[in-house]
Amino acid sequence: MPSKRYLMTPGPTPVPPAVAAAMARPLVHHRTAEFRAVLARALARLREVYRTDAEVVLFTSSGTGGMESAVANLCERGDRVVCVSAGNFGERWITLAHAYGCDVVPVRYEWGETPAADDVAAALADAGGAKAVFLTHSETSTGVVADVGEIAARVAGSGALVVVDAISSLGAVPLETDAWGLDVVVAGSQKALMTPPGLATVSVSEAALAAANDAATARFYFDWERVLKAQREDRPATPFTPAITLVYGLDAALEILLAEGLDAAFDRHVRLGRACRAGAKAMGLELFSPDDDRSVVVTAIRMPGEVDGVAVIRAVSERHGITLEGGRGALAGKIVRIGHIGYVDVFDVTAALTALEQVLADLGTDVERGVAAAAALEAFGGEAVRV
Amino acid sequence: MPSKRYLMTPGPTPVPPAVAAAMARPLVHHRTAEFRAVLARALARLREVYRTDAEVVLFTSSGTGGMESAVANLCERGDRVVCVSAGNFGERWITLAHAYGCDVVPVRYEWGETPAADDVAAALADAGGAKAVFLTHSETSTGVVADVGEIAARVAGSGALVVVDAISSLGAVPLETDAWGLDVVVAGSQKALMTPPGLATVSVSEAALAAANDAATARFYFDWERVLKAQREDRPATPFTPAITLVYGLDAALEILLAEGLDAAFDRHVRLGRACRAGAKAMGLELFSPDDDRSVVVTAIRMPGEVDGVAVIRAVSERHGITLEGGRGALAGKIVRIGHIGYVDVFDVTAALTALEQVLADLGTDVERGVAAAAALEAFGGEAVRV
Repeated sequence: MPSKRYLMTPGPTPVPPAVAAAMARPLVHHRTAEFRAVLARALARLREVYRTDAEVVLFTSSGTGGMESAVANLCERGDRVVCVSAGNFGERWITLAHAYGCDVVPVRYEWGETPAADDVAAALADAGGAKAVFLTHSETSTGVVADVGEIAARVAGSGALVVVDAISSLGAVPLETDAWGLDVVVAGSQKALMTPPGLATVSVSEAALAAANDAATARFYFDWERVLKAQREDRPATPFTPAITLVYGLDAALEILLAEGLDAAFDRHVRLGRACRAGAKAMGLELFSPDDDRSVVVTAIRMPGEVDGVAVIRAVSERHGITLEGGRGALAGKIVRIGHIGYVDVFDVTAALTALEQVLADLGTDVERGVAAAAALEAFGGEAVRV
Repeated sequence: MPSKRYLMTPGPTPVPPAVAAAMARPLVHHRTAEFRAVLARALARLREVYRTDAEVVLFTSSGTGGMESAVANLCERGDRVVCVSAGNFGERWITLAHAYGCDVVPVRYEWGETPAADDVAAALADAGGAKAVFLTHSETSTGVVADVGEIAARVAGSGALVVVDAISSLGAVPLETDAWGLDVVVAGSQKALMTPPGLATVSVSEAALAAANDAATARFYFDWERVLKAQREDRPATPFTPAITLVYGLDAALEILLAEGLDAAFDRHVRLGRACRAGAKAMGLELFSPDDDRSVVVTAIRMPGEVDGVAVIRAVSERHGITLEGGRGALAGKIVRIGHIGYVDVFDVTAALTALEQVLADLGTDVERGVAAAAALEAFGGEAVRV
């Protein structure tokens, strides 16, 4: 029998059977009434998950394509923008803005730190007339979830648009697109939205659309207005052939998420985060990601002593079929990251913790044996949530 | 029982069971050895299908994204380019080049005409110093397949790069990337490559790569060098999370295509084209697409008299579960297009013809009854090819 596999990374994430089944249907042409109805429903469901009345643009691309669309639609060469970075994905905003010739004002933190609204407000005031502020909601390279609501409140009134990378947070962490005044929010299918990678979604406020109309930049595939024109048809369409199977999958996944209820999903993710942190601490490991209930996407654990995280991840994968992720950049080998978003329950977390425990013990590390799983289940609390 | 469905459009095309099975496997993380091996094999197989030693760039996007990558990597604002257009997808090159501020020299034909090498050579000479010539191999809006080899031979030595949209032709129509001196060839997963939509592939010659390195344009997601840097690792990777399920599907589909053999696949497509044309003519219909063996991707049939092609397509779909395509632009309602690329056999073609025959007869059209299927099978010849 092929061994069971556990995909415990902060994206891609495991695909629920109903999503796999929706994707396995015979292919339907994208200009049929049948596909248009599915697309329309998926877009409506997305707006619910985004908690927005704004339009949500769907792209066939990685999440990075959705991020690039924000820069390409808004930023003309020389435009001043503020980019907040405390990890790998914050750096991506900076790289993207540079690629488009922006005058970038970076607000940089050590990887692992949590951006502070005061710093962003100060940088914005110093910058003077910035067109946009680019933020990362969940920095998956470190496990930090920023308080985007608070930061956005400080940007409000400055004239700058608020652009948020919520790729690994949407559906797992509370995010209020409209209530928080977020102009652009980028998400990806392969995180808490429980669908394989290949779709990016971008909510666009009226102010952002107006700014895009004023920006004379070279763009076509990622042009918001071109996509929205097709999506606004009586029965929505896409301007180019979309990843049809993934749209079916996303629609089915959103149905599952909304049936669970967004608030229930947020609560489940809080408890999964608690479980993972409790288990890691019980075996005597030190957390790299914050030890608080905002850190629900991925738990980053410091490797003790001279233990090489890369070797640990390889052993956990080869011996147990469990995929974890390592550190990026300067954190390579130093941390191991356990993702717990989307179609994940507490026993996925206990499996990852137990495997990690055994591998570390075999490497001669002084971990406490036999306590992590019970501690995790205890911290999770209540009944295991059935989704 | 749900009715069987026939997807007889020039893309997306039906997915072979082995491809569907490959895509239905549990999701694997894209930074694992397992995925990298599949990616490496798919890229090697792609080079075989392209008949090239050049690198092939893989994007998670629609085919249009691959087309945009050619413009974005090569064309700086003000660059002069020649765009050949004889249909909807030729127009897309012109729109894309304009979006990037190019000085576009269009070589335009009536939709349905076949571009001539002489015209392209003359336009290129008149233009003086054009950076690139943009061509469409198979113009799916009309069914015309251009002689790209002959045109490229006339461009050779001019200093202009040859860029080809082969989205609906690669794998169905002979195309020799290296032998014909094609610098950039764009394809898509959802045509003769028998995979659902969502992947674009782009072969890039050394000359094209050098030109891209010299072009200071705003690009990130579609930047060739960024993707190639990841693909060139010992075990190839992608710079951003790819559409993992589709890469597994593409790899399985390319295995099928290469097992059949490219030349055998080209021959099968020639015979499918013959079958479709013979059937349409046998029932007394007039062809819009050329009545020759180069027209193997899609057969475009003129609707007789005042018959509305849109109504015909709707009836064929609703009554028989067969998806055909109509005309685009000025051809809307005037033609019906039957696609026959990829995982298609002659009985798919006879099904489409027979359904079309019945629907036209019921609309009071004077079609010859009961002869199309036999004529098609006769024209197909030999044994039905088993793939």
